[in-house]
Amino acid sequence: MLSVEEARARILAPLRPTPAEVVSLAVAFGRVSAEPIVARRTQPPCDVSAMDGFALHAVDGRMGARLTVIGSAPAGHPFAGRVGPGETVRVFTGSVMPDGADAVLPQEDAKDEGSRIVIGEAVRDGQHVRRAGQDFSEGVALAPAGKRLTARDIGLAAAANHPWIAVHRAPRVAILATGDEIALPGEALPPGGIVSSNAHALGALVRAGGGEVTLLPIVRDDAAAIAEAAEAARGMDLLVTTGGASVGQFDLVQAGLERLGFVLDFWKIAMRPGKPLIAGRVGAVPILGLPGNPVSAMVCAILFLLPAVARLTGQEGETLASEEARLGAAVAANDGRADHLRARLSRDGAGRLVVTAFPRQDSSLMRLLAEADALIVRPPHAPALPADAAVPVIRLDRLGI
Amino acid sequence: MLSVEEARARILAPLRPTPAEVVSLAVAFGRVSAEPIVARRTQPPCDVSAMDGFALHAVDGRMGARLTVIGSAPAGHPFAGRVGPGETVRVFTGSVMPDGADAVLPQEDAKDEGSRIVIGEAVRDGQHVRRAGQDFSEGVALAPAGKRLTARDIGLAAAANHPWIAVHRAPRVAILATGDEIALPGEALPPGGIVSSNAHALGALVRAGGGEVTLLPIVRDDAAAIAEAAEAARGMDLLVTTGGASVGQFDLVQAGLERLGFVLDFWKIAMRPGKPLIAGRVGAVPILGLPGNPVSAMVCAILFLLPAVARLTGQEGETLASEEARLGAAVAANDGRADHLRARLSRDGAGRLVVTAFPRQDSSLMRLLAEADALIVRPPHAPALPADAAVPVIRLDRLGI
Repeated sequence: MLSVEEARARILAPLRPTPAEVVSLAVAFGRVSAEPIVARRTQPPCDVSAMDGFALHAVDGRMGARLTVIGSAPAGHPFAGRVGPGETVRVFTGSVMPDGADAVLPQEDAKDEGSRIVIGEAVRDGQHVRRAGQDFSEGVALAPAGKRLTARDIGLAAAANHPWIAVHRAPRVAILATGDEIALPGEALPPGGIVSSNAHALGALVRAGGGEVTLLPIVRDDAAAIAEAAEAARGMDLLVTTGGASVGQFDLVQAGLERLGFVLDFWKIAMRPGKPLIAGRVGAVPILGLPGNPVSAMVCAILFLLPAVARLTGQEGETLASEEARLGAAVAANDGRADHLRARLSRDGAGRLVVTAFPRQDSSLMRLLAEADALIVRPPHAPALPADAAVPVIRLDRLGI
Repeated sequence: MLSVEEARARILAPLRPTPAEVVSLAVAFGRVSAEPIVARRTQPPCDVSAMDGFALHAVDGRMGARLTVIGSAPAGHPFAGRVGPGETVRVFTGSVMPDGADAVLPQEDAKDEGSRIVIGEAVRDGQHVRRAGQDFSEGVALAPAGKRLTARDIGLAAAANHPWIAVHRAPRVAILATGDEIALPGEALPPGGIVSSNAHALGALVRAGGGEVTLLPIVRDDAAAIAEAAEAARGMDLLVTTGGASVGQFDLVQAGLERLGFVLDFWKIAMRPGKPLIAGRVGAVPILGLPGNPVSAMVCAILFLLPAVARLTGQEGETLASEEARLGAAVAANDGRADHLRARLSRDGAGRLVVTAFPRQDSSLMRLLAEADALIVRPPHAPALPADAAVPVIRLDRLGI
């Protein structure tokens, strides 16, 4: 059996980031930069006031001195003249510093006599002045390529004068649910059938990761129909199947896909929930075949599909970070398969993160998966651990899924 | 000066969740449920096999016994007959348990002789059978009202047979940037002007919180123009302004809004960055006026706007959770204003979260805000703390902004 890490590396290896497209800054939030975002201007563009107050020569700023107010420079309306000795100009936060002035007296330190002010607090050279380029200079990279852009990055790109951003095109991910026993929500069910849920949960997860979803119609357990559906995925960046990956049903999916002339890998992965997984490629389209069991499908999706989507969107680095938490209750020794215990998070009195596995871990329990805040990762052959021991957790709340 | 907590409570108090709309399950991810999601069916709907194997009477399951295979029941094709003594039916994971059978022998424990099997492992009563309703029963609430739906909730709602979900309508948030000195990215700048960045960053933040954004055209520093823009926000769920909230400029925004006949509050909040804030209502439209300084605007947006959007979307409970981390470097004593230090997160050797404030905390530095992973919250009059002390942090990475 493959390890989780080895399986993930083999799934990710052939995936290439999608090419770039140009989008308006207004819709670039959450997209992944395809090239560095380089400052097109210097910020601030010139020395500006950091306060509402009075711009002056610092040498004039003696306690009790009187200065003549020769003008005002609201933001956006720079003072045209020059501040001479004994003179001052009214300024506001962000006002361009008038020529000749080198410091700002805060308004609360000035006694305003209309055309003159009296200085109430001695002035230091350069005080309350923001220097040109203090935030960034033209030509500097403000965000690297391969970064999923935050709201703050969007603000920074705006400030650097970018109306457009080059981002990786959202990967197109087709999702195919197979099985004679499933039907879409609200549709008539076959006898003893169940409602198809995986495709919808996986679709949401792909969207959370920045992909675009095409939900293919459900395919019956029939090799020809499976081949036809896989054909429909040509041009996609990834085809995800669910169902047909258990030992008994695998032959059918393999038979269907082999009609297209391509060889698929079938792996057993040393993990729980989940185990069987299909990986491969039909033509140019990578395929990831997840189990049909909803909890197994979702855990496999978190471990393999989410990183795959991240890779396709062009994101660099580790995208599935685990954190450490203290066990709220003891856990048993683990066997040879990495386990992913559905668990709740809380905080102890010292504010530390505490994780407590649900007593029931049956992989048929969707409801407990939905209620879980985290998965406790138990490596193969991990020893039994008492309460309060540190364990790695995958925080489902952080993944937004 | 108001405390941050008091200001937030006063901003949230008048906000009401938006009314419900019905959306397809396929687009309900990330939306907030307007009513509990109640199971419309029982899952599993009847007893089903938990394994690929053979359904039988447990009493027949003696080691070495031979059973006659009288049929097969793939998932979606229940066996029509009844399993009698000495008989068995081939089943798969999820297959409906045939009448008369009460346990499943895993296929790896059976020697398959074609029309007969030999039992290789003694069978316990009820083994490898998932009971009807083990996951959930019809009528049970699977998600409460007021929950932002995860990918797992979507899967659960699908499994419970919901093609449609009642969610709170996305709040419509208008964003208005004011100032003579600003222009949109790519547009001609006034002399000494800067590019408008706040509206774009705030728009992304509102979208991250589940709101719908209307970006109003930039308004010059003119009371009539401000009044006209505020008029354009009628029918919105929230109007956010940026700029014009400093002491010097506030009168103009107030003058503009007063033309519409409504009284606004102007608060100074005991916080840094940020301090001046406008709150109030023009007609039915709540108004939140943020500072013009980009870092102050964003920190105020995290503390006040994000919770406001969460409230409007109908989310219950605390939406701005802080976590605890260890200081990577000492911090100085704090004055009377709550401080929000821009900081980087890392892990120490024991896997604990470590937070280290940037040496520069000037509120003009957008670039450092964009690079921050977290804000260290320093309450008013907090004492100096050495490295390794525990402090509350707001994790910007967790907020997805």
